Amino acid sequence: MNLTFKVEPGGALNLADYDPRYKADLDRKDAEEQFQHLAREIDELQELLYAASTHSLLVVLQGMDTSGKDGTIRKVFHRVDPLGTRVKSFKTPTEEELAHDFLWRVHQNAPCRGEIGIFNRSHYEDVLIVRVHNLVPESIWRQRYRQINDFERLLTENNTIVLKFFLHISYEEQAERLREREEEVAKAWKLSVGDWEERQLWDAYQAAYVDALRLCSTECAPWHIVPADRKWFRNLAIATTIVEMLRPLKADWLAQLKRQSDRSLAELREYRERNHTAE
Amino acid sequence: MNLTFKVEPGGALNLADYDPRYKADLDRKDAEEQFQHLAREIDELQELLYAASTHSLLVVLQGMDTSGKDGTIRKVFHRVDPLGTRVKSFKTPTEEELAHDFLWRVHQNAPCRGEIGIFNRSHYEDVLIVRVHNLVPESIWRQRYRQINDFERLLTENNTIVLKFFLHISYEEQAERLREREEEVAKAWKLSVGDWEERQLWDAYQAAYVDALRLCSTECAPWHIVPADRKWFRNLAIATTIVEMLRPLKADWLAQLKRQSDRSLAELREYRERNHTAE
Repeated sequence: MNLTFKVEPGGALNLADYDPRYKADLDRKDAEEQFQHLAREIDELQELLYAASTHSLLVVLQGMDTSGKDGTIRKVFHRVDPLGTRVKSFKTPTEEELAHDFLWRVHQNAPCRGEIGIFNRSHYEDVLIVRVHNLVPESIWRQRYRQINDFERLLTENNTIVLKFFLHISYEEQAERLREREEEVAKAWKLSVGDWEERQLWDAYQAAYVDALRLCSTECAPWHIVPADRKWFRNLAIATTIVEMLRPLKADWLAQLKRQSDRSLAELREYRERNHTAE
Repeated sequence: MNLTFKVEPGGALNLADYDPRYKADLDRKDAEEQFQHLAREIDELQELLYAASTHSLLVVLQGMDTSGKDGTIRKVFHRVDPLGTRVKSFKTPTEEELAHDFLWRVHQNAPCRGEIGIFNRSHYEDVLIVRVHNLVPESIWRQRYRQINDFERLLTENNTIVLKFFLHISYEEQAERLREREEEVAKAWKLSVGDWEERQLWDAYQAAYVDALRLCSTECAPWHIVPADRKWFRNLAIATTIVEMLRPLKADWLAQLKRQSDRSLAELREYRERNHTAE
């Protein structure tokens, strides 16, 4: 059963080939149970990642409004220790940020070794909203795809695991979710006329996404297209991808901890002998 | 049943009056059940805090090595949405940080409105380790108590709720926990000769804590002394204090969300009429 949807580097891409309502052969109950196991495993893997501190994990979440970026953070990382997890939500750049290259503020927020960094939106906005709204000339945004690839290669060559998820929802599902916000006071803080206005630009955004996914899915930092109309399937797909990426590193992390432990114990023995103490 | 232990501003303080093994009349099972309810309530309150974005919460965690700062973060904030929660662990200051006043790096990490900020160690290290190890002259650290009070008043006057917890463990419990680290490879990353060396300075640290607690427990930003030898009691006491502090604000946050919702819906109606659209 296929639960991960990696965009093959260098290939063609047609979003119509990806069904936002895809759910494999799963029903919700089984998927949620499977997800709970994965969430626990992510928690365990994060503890090791944090303790070994040889790698960091960067999770990039992108998608149209209402595609479930916030919900993914809440659900998929709900069990994970906040001590080693940091979420950065990228908003409209400040004047200071705009006075630098577009990756300046992003680089500052890269996770340090041992940490999971989650980008709620990211540097990809600089080839998405910026492109759709012509905020910079094409000659500028066009070269950003390569700049992004170079930047992400730098990260991965320095032990950051980069996982990028495009939360793929349908035009119809978006309308439904926007309407839900009108009906629930608790969701009112998310309600905005701007979302309905942006929706007019759906096709332009989808085209911009296709280029971002196509041009920036690399061997070291691939994109994953996540069917996201069903939240439970979205959570399962993302958790599966994360676990499959981290699990192979577990043995290395345990070995690293063992080495660290042996070294510290030797130091402690030496200290106790020197000071003739049992403490 | 008393579960919160606020240090009365301006009073005398003797740590010997506080039993690190205190557990009220509770047994572990009941306490853990009670704690699960509170953890859920903290989660709900955080969602409202985040959505309303009128206040922020700053939780300061201090305590001797092994007192359970990391464990508190893991347990008490485990259910809370990582999107609105940020942990800052303060380590040895960098050269750049040392070239500024001691509150400079702290201020930069103050939570923004809507956010829960958790300080794993804090500006209090500048009147604790700094004092115990004579890293600056007494004339310098002595004035920091007032500077801290002024700084925390600034925060609280700008809608940051400040909760400070001293995780109070016994000398015996510390030895036990340090030894545990020698026995478990998974805890090896925390194992360090330095901890046993620092333990020699236990009394000097306790004296420094007494002054920090006594001089910096203010009406707006009180200290809480948490009996921390039993982890389950520690978690319960901290969760109780947080809930009791946030719960009274819930009605205001809901009213704020209602206002926000009404405003957005009116804008949306106006937008639809103007554009003759149902979307």
